[in-house]
Amino acid sequence: MTHSNTPRTRIDDLPIRDELRGKSPYGAPQLDVPVRLNTNENPYPLPEALVERIAERVREAARDLNRYPDRDAVELRTELARYLTRTAGHEVSLANVWAANGSNEVLQQLLQTFGGPGRTAIGFEPSYSMHALIARGTGTGWISGPRNEDFTIDVEAAKRAIAEHRPDVVFITSPNNPTGTAVDAGTVLALHEAAQAAKPSMVVVDEAYGEFSHHASLLPLIEGRPNLVLSRTMSKAFGAAGLRLGYLAADPAVVDAVQLVRLPYHLSSVTQATALAALEHTDTLLGYVAQLKSERDRIVDELRALGYDVTDSDANFVQFGRFADSHIAWQRILDRGVLVRDNGVPGWLRVSAGTPAENDAFLDAVRELKKEHDA
Amino acid sequence: MTHSNTPRTRIDDLPIRDELRGKSPYGAPQLDVPVRLNTNENPYPLPEALVERIAERVREAARDLNRYPDRDAVELRTELARYLTRTAGHEVSLANVWAANGSNEVLQQLLQTFGGPGRTAIGFEPSYSMHALIARGTGTGWISGPRNEDFTIDVEAAKRAIAEHRPDVVFITSPNNPTGTAVDAGTVLALHEAAQAAKPSMVVVDEAYGEFSHHASLLPLIEGRPNLVLSRTMSKAFGAAGLRLGYLAADPAVVDAVQLVRLPYHLSSVTQATALAALEHTDTLLGYVAQLKSERDRIVDELRALGYDVTDSDANFVQFGRFADSHIAWQRILDRGVLVRDNGVPGWLRVSAGTPAENDAFLDAVRELKKEHDA
Repeated sequence: MTHSNTPRTRIDDLPIRDELRGKSPYGAPQLDVPVRLNTNENPYPLPEALVERIAERVREAARDLNRYPDRDAVELRTELARYLTRTAGHEVSLANVWAANGSNEVLQQLLQTFGGPGRTAIGFEPSYSMHALIARGTGTGWISGPRNEDFTIDVEAAKRAIAEHRPDVVFITSPNNPTGTAVDAGTVLALHEAAQAAKPSMVVVDEAYGEFSHHASLLPLIEGRPNLVLSRTMSKAFGAAGLRLGYLAADPAVVDAVQLVRLPYHLSSVTQATALAALEHTDTLLGYVAQLKSERDRIVDELRALGYDVTDSDANFVQFGRFADSHIAWQRILDRGVLVRDNGVPGWLRVSAGTPAENDAFLDAVRELKKEHDA
Repeated sequence: MTHSNTPRTRIDDLPIRDELRGKSPYGAPQLDVPVRLNTNENPYPLPEALVERIAERVREAARDLNRYPDRDAVELRTELARYLTRTAGHEVSLANVWAANGSNEVLQQLLQTFGGPGRTAIGFEPSYSMHALIARGTGTGWISGPRNEDFTIDVEAAKRAIAEHRPDVVFITSPNNPTGTAVDAGTVLALHEAAQAAKPSMVVVDEAYGEFSHHASLLPLIEGRPNLVLSRTMSKAFGAAGLRLGYLAADPAVVDAVQLVRLPYHLSSVTQATALAALEHTDTLLGYVAQLKSERDRIVDELRALGYDVTDSDANFVQFGRFADSHIAWQRILDRGVLVRDNGVPGWLRVSAGTPAENDAFLDAVRELKKEHDA
């Protein structure tokens, strides 16, 4: 459809919502670079046995593809509950677990249920920027809460912000993205208490990088707290960013509630089959997690030895700095064939833990950068 | 997580949005019945060669599953554009096509972009009930527009409703669900003109059942009309309800605009791989569509011969009646092992075209029902 003599219609010529005018889609630049350490992907491809198992389970699902998928994803949620019970220190079952296309869709469903027009959500920034974007996409007002200089949550300031703004949803990201900072149970409980006193509101603990933490999961906190939700993803620990499988654990009433807004049959048969195959290989995949944690610790140590400032990391990535101009530093590292992430946190950049060879390439690049700077 | 001595938290104990209180999740009852003709699924399983091809393409995708999927689904959108160009009477390309997890997600993205808080959408009811539900889920006000007694759109009444309410989004479903009624191009153009005069607003033509129509696709109408969007799905014609792949065709500006609200990487690698495999087998699958159209016509003829009222159908389902109490009639048909759909249209039921044997079972059931009634 080419109109050689009519001017091209632009987004702003359409009757889009006012708050979308002039905005750009979210997403890291997808550049063709030898070493890509910018999106916190797991660098280890799935083991071949799992690839075969996925093909097998999808083949089976494809034989029934003319039928709608299991709308309630019962088998998948049961297996996710089993995984959490085994690894996160708290017993949950099917009724506690809900799954969707990536934790982004989980969070969107939560905001459609508990946020939305006339309601607000708070996050403590810098944090995962999709929280604010999904708030915008669901018509939820966004409140940017504070952090300490060292990127930990300033509990007293956070409690004051909650008391002042009375948000309907409180996001706590642990480990935090892009800083890598873990949040302890005491902080979550203090903010949960403040949130209940103020409204009451829902507290969403985003534990997308939970498996990489030095600390235990915050999952046990959902016990007896129906307004506290934990969200997770298979993108990182399961090495399955391409699968788009996020999930939550919470009181069964929360699982019932999100079904009022979920699109029916939102989770395809092929997604369910692939996720189930990956869950069969949990132990192998958690082995890669152990390797990545050790590489993450090595990156922290070597960066500090080089003289960089490094934020303590409980994730599969590391925030490092400080740079007078982080975008220039980002470009210099890219010039050496390594793509890291500029999250717009002034003075800081973020690097994902890759394979040992990828991390070596990154460390070589920043070592040269340091020399240049010191020269 | 069992609390033997604490009362179970219910949905309404949570701080959910007021408009969700007392609501139930959307979805047809999933009953274990020999003949299920209630959700307009394609009764033909995918051919074994396609099942193998899906396994093959998913195996390939799984080798890269640790990486995020192609965020822009370029190959898939290119192939969908090629399919539309070949079958829907109008040339479109990658830039005109957008895909998501089912046409429900496509429609949700459209309402997040062009509807939302403080805005309204209109549909002409009875129609696909998800339009109103997705409006609610996105905070878009819903206006129920009128139809004629024979379920065609009352063009003059519809134009008056558009002029009066000035909706931001106008839904036109063709063929309409649950009635099967096709909408002609003249009606779409008249409503589009009325909508532009009133606001201007977006017109969304939901052609989920387009391939089953006696008439040509309405796709050519997007030419020169950037505010007109056509939505489609692979659930029905491609026999892939389990895949959850919906798409739209429109001016490239619309495709750009929905990317402001789409969740990044919303479409998994396995979904993209599976859809691409199915598109390779288009001709075989359209052969099944031809069979289903012929069966649909047989159902219409036989029902009429039995003395039922039948709405003209351009879809893979048939609306029939009239019943003093459609729910009782639904139950009587179910008692004979055939599950049809009670869409809440007083006096009418809907049956999906199944295999010849399934349709025979359905026709036997309604023949007996008729005899009972006449006795």
